[in-house]
Amino acid sequence: MPIFDYPESFRELTRQLRRLPSIGPRGAERIALWMLLSPHAHPEDLAGAIHHASQHCQSCEQCGFFSEQKICSLCADETRSGKEFCIVERATDILPLERTGVFHGRYHALGGKLSPLDGIGPEQLRITELMDRLCLDRPSEIILALSGDVEGEATAHFLAEMIAPLKIKITRLAQGLSAGSAVEQADTVTLQRALVHRAHYSF
Amino acid sequence: MPIFDYPESFRELTRQLRRLPSIGPRGAERIALWMLLSPHAHPEDLAGAIHHASQHCQSCEQCGFFSEQKICSLCADETRSGKEFCIVERATDILPLERTGVFHGRYHALGGKLSPLDGIGPEQLRITELMDRLCLDRPSEIILALSGDVEGEATAHFLAEMIAPLKIKITRLAQGLSAGSAVEQADTVTLQRALVHRAHYSF
Repeated sequence: MPIFDYPESFRELTRQLRRLPSIGPRGAERIALWMLLSPHAHPEDLAGAIHHASQHCQSCEQCGFFSEQKICSLCADETRSGKEFCIVERATDILPLERTGVFHGRYHALGGKLSPLDGIGPEQLRITELMDRLCLDRPSEIILALSGDVEGEATAHFLAEMIAPLKIKITRLAQGLSAGSAVEQADTVTLQRALVHRAHYSF
Repeated sequence: MPIFDYPESFRELTRQLRRLPSIGPRGAERIALWMLLSPHAHPEDLAGAIHHASQHCQSCEQCGFFSEQKICSLCADETRSGKEFCIVERATDILPLERTGVFHGRYHALGGKLSPLDGIGPEQLRITELMDRLCLDRPSEIILALSGDVEGEATAHFLAEMIAPLKIKITRLAQGLSAGSAVEQADTVTLQRALVHRAHYSF
């Protein structure tokens, strides 16, 4: 007796949805049913948006952020200062920093951090592009906005040595207590760094 | 100063993903980033699957289940009995019943249940199609596999009155304790029905 099941096109849709991050088999079936049954679903709109974004969203040739042009709107913005460069690991780190409203310079996404165990060396990162930009723009300060783990520290160290001959001031993000966090819940390394880099109390 | 953000095609993708059931703003952004950044994402495959399913998945003209042909493979299966008809609310109720392996007859999905408050009357359900099938196939038994809530009961009552003149035996799903459930945790209505419809104990 043949096993009765959903048609192949439906099962293929469910298989594809299951590949999305944090979508399980139940969720995939629910989404697929919603797409086919709900009068408000308009699944073609989603298919079109996926197609359009994967065709038109590319990496900005300069900073590595997402862009529909060769150069993103931030790199194309002449009013932004070229005196400060903020180096981040991933293109997705740029918007959270931008939303702080504190930094008005230029960004550069490396596309990751040094991680020999994962086969990511300097050649896999956008370091040549960074050095080209630095030689061209000659900023007065470079902020290393890299993560605080071992790979982030190693990447920062590597970059600092690369940039040293250019005689540019190199800074890094402050490390210490998170906003709103309690001292008794902070881990030892965080407290250690918060003590070492303690700042003058200002009224 | 212009607000710096993801490009429009990326934001449109995020908007479309947010419309999916149980996907929030964070999840939509994570999925969109995964689609554009992961080398294993192949977003065009999902776009193609959505397009293909929404073009090719239709309702079976007979039972209302999903099908790529006018008639689904179950309705087209000549080996299945036409003597028993199982009436369900939604097309999605068919597979769970089919997986029990107990029923070998034909299904008919109404497309919902009577719910005057939601504007769903008999005209919104596939009742004319049901009566046409019954008059043509003349089954010997009709199983009402509808839900146990007020709307399900009202729909069952309405159908039973419609079908009565055809002199076909009408049955309904048994109501009682769920498999594995404890008596002390069952609600009063369930216990009431389990008592009223108690069955002979068989060794």
